[in-house]
Amino acid sequence: MRVILPAGTTETALIDGISAAGAAPELMAHTPSADVEILAYGEPTGAPVTPVSPTGCPTPAAVTRAVREVVGFDLAVVDAGLARPTAAPTVDLGVDPGATVRDAVAVEDSEAIFDRAHDFGSSLPDDEVLIGETVPGGTTTALGVLTALGEPATVSSSLPENPLERKRRTVDQGLDASDLEPGACATEPMAAIRAVGDPVQPTVAGIAAGALEAGIDVTLAGGTQMVAVAAVLRHAGVEDRLSIATTSFVADEQGERLERACERLECDLVVTDPGFDRRGHVAMERYCAGEAKEGVAMGGALSLVSDDELQAVRERFETICDRLGIGSDGPGETATDGNGEASSDGGKRRGS
Amino acid sequence: MRVILPAGTTETALIDGISAAGAAPELMAHTPSADVEILAYGEPTGAPVTPVSPTGCPTPAAVTRAVREVVGFDLAVVDAGLARPTAAPTVDLGVDPGATVRDAVAVEDSEAIFDRAHDFGSSLPDDEVLIGETVPGGTTTALGVLTALGEPATVSSSLPENPLERKRRTVDQGLDASDLEPGACATEPMAAIRAVGDPVQPTVAGIAAGALEAGIDVTLAGGTQMVAVAAVLRHAGVEDRLSIATTSFVADEQGERLERACERLECDLVVTDPGFDRRGHVAMERYCAGEAKEGVAMGGALSLVSDDELQAVRERFETICDRLGIGSDGPGETATDGNGEASSDGGKRRGS
Repeated sequence: MRVILPAGTTETALIDGISAAGAAPELMAHTPSADVEILAYGEPTGAPVTPVSPTGCPTPAAVTRAVREVVGFDLAVVDAGLARPTAAPTVDLGVDPGATVRDAVAVEDSEAIFDRAHDFGSSLPDDEVLIGETVPGGTTTALGVLTALGEPATVSSSLPENPLERKRRTVDQGLDASDLEPGACATEPMAAIRAVGDPVQPTVAGIAAGALEAGIDVTLAGGTQMVAVAAVLRHAGVEDRLSIATTSFVADEQGERLERACERLECDLVVTDPGFDRRGHVAMERYCAGEAKEGVAMGGALSLVSDDELQAVRERFETICDRLGIGSDGPGETATDGNGEASSDGGKRRGS
Repeated sequence: MRVILPAGTTETALIDGISAAGAAPELMAHTPSADVEILAYGEPTGAPVTPVSPTGCPTPAAVTRAVREVVGFDLAVVDAGLARPTAAPTVDLGVDPGATVRDAVAVEDSEAIFDRAHDFGSSLPDDEVLIGETVPGGTTTALGVLTALGEPATVSSSLPENPLERKRRTVDQGLDASDLEPGACATEPMAAIRAVGDPVQPTVAGIAAGALEAGIDVTLAGGTQMVAVAAVLRHAGVEDRLSIATTSFVADEQGERLERACERLECDLVVTDPGFDRRGHVAMERYCAGEAKEGVAMGGALSLVSDDELQAVRERFETICDRLGIGSDGPGETATDGNGEASSDGGKRRGS
């Protein structure tokens, strides 16, 4: 199994109150560069920050890395518009950082990015791939694209209190700036991205479309951002079978809306639960409180973990948090837990 | 264990009769880009060629990939001057392709490349790394650097008949063009590379120096090209323990010269033998006939293989040759062979 991780940036993330993917706005541009170093090396090596939310919740990259250290998977990071250098190996598809959706054009060359990503995806020799993302501000651009496509639009948040109204206002401003009405791009998904999207979207969509064309099974690893990519694919006429794998944190926040979106887009839905409520670790508590929720292919990576291995992933996550300097003060796995946890608070649920 | 693979090009490879790292000169520029795709994906995905010698001997990348499929190792490819695109993920250190050694300047910014590579190497969180290379024409630039440093200079070849005199003439022309005498750069190894080296050399040397400074064990995975890098490091005042791991094909060709070079440079030497004489496979026969010999970290990768796993590596190599469209017409492992092969024609030898 190969995990493909397009990583990029959009200036949309700098809009006040939009994203928690960084301790402070000026550090957010480093977040995807640091995330992919954590995936590749286990910690940031070139990037000057360890991505945490303003309250100290560690990036989902730490969870995905924990999965990688336990089950192992091949990784291909794709530069989908990084604004800062990274020491991680990346595939170069010539993608630039995105502008803000409030500009008339958010992604100058969405069509060309899609085409190059399509070539890359169709060249892969794999049987199945899992495609994730890391792009601060990505739920706002997801909302933008869903709105421009005319899809029922709601998105998740890396913040416990979803600033959805703020995102909607931002998207409305973005559509105004591009002189578009909601739904205006229903038959032109690349125009939707160009106006109010981010550069990671055509990269993920292009890789997925190319891989599907080559007969590769594709799972989109993410929450509402991947719903937006799935919508892009369906509006582009891609009819192949498609799965979305996301975390229980997104599913719990979104409730039936997520399942309905997947039904409408004819996507299989896999929901994974890392069982973080079983341990007293401070980082896990923040996830349980609704921070971060998803990102960096976390939900999809967890779908690669058997129930027997979940405890090892949690333990590895703690080790990684220690390595990243994110404190642990919990008592460890509670006494009522054991191995073989197939209970409702650990493992996979499948729907739609 | 992480394998780091700087991959680059030098126009020196285009000098007639220098390199066998491609079926034809015009294809050689694609060789390193294809090699790293084979390592990353198991076959060329974006590059338009499968690197073979003019007689059809497959690139050592196929052997290193076979090792990777059997024992698994983390991979970080570094763009050390690729002249053609690659679909493999690469670390970007801003390295340009090298000019020919016959120009006054072969590597414009050798010092700056070394410094950036040093930063990268010192940032790695690993306990041990193995650093390889893929650069067609690299034994000629190795000869150039050894000569400019004033080291006893002899190098291996990817051809069965080593065109050593041709390489010496090329290096002499290169030193003339740079207005240098042999030995003139003994205290300035980056000047040696600038005049008659290639961009992969300061990348490997810089990563090694940085990693050693960070307390990481370093093995240079390669033959006489890595002797040249070890000489660069020693002439740069790096005194840490250093190993070179290469194939029996190089060791057999070089005989005592290789051991003496390692002694003089205070490098441990590990010689690995894939046991290719045990099977009738056409690609293995070419290696046994002295083609290719080494490259793409082949010798170092084989040092990661236990004797018990060697047969699996040979079998995987055959599978990969099939995948690459390189014919098999042999009878498979001969009847006298079994498992647990610790005999003289399969396994590791250690020296110096």
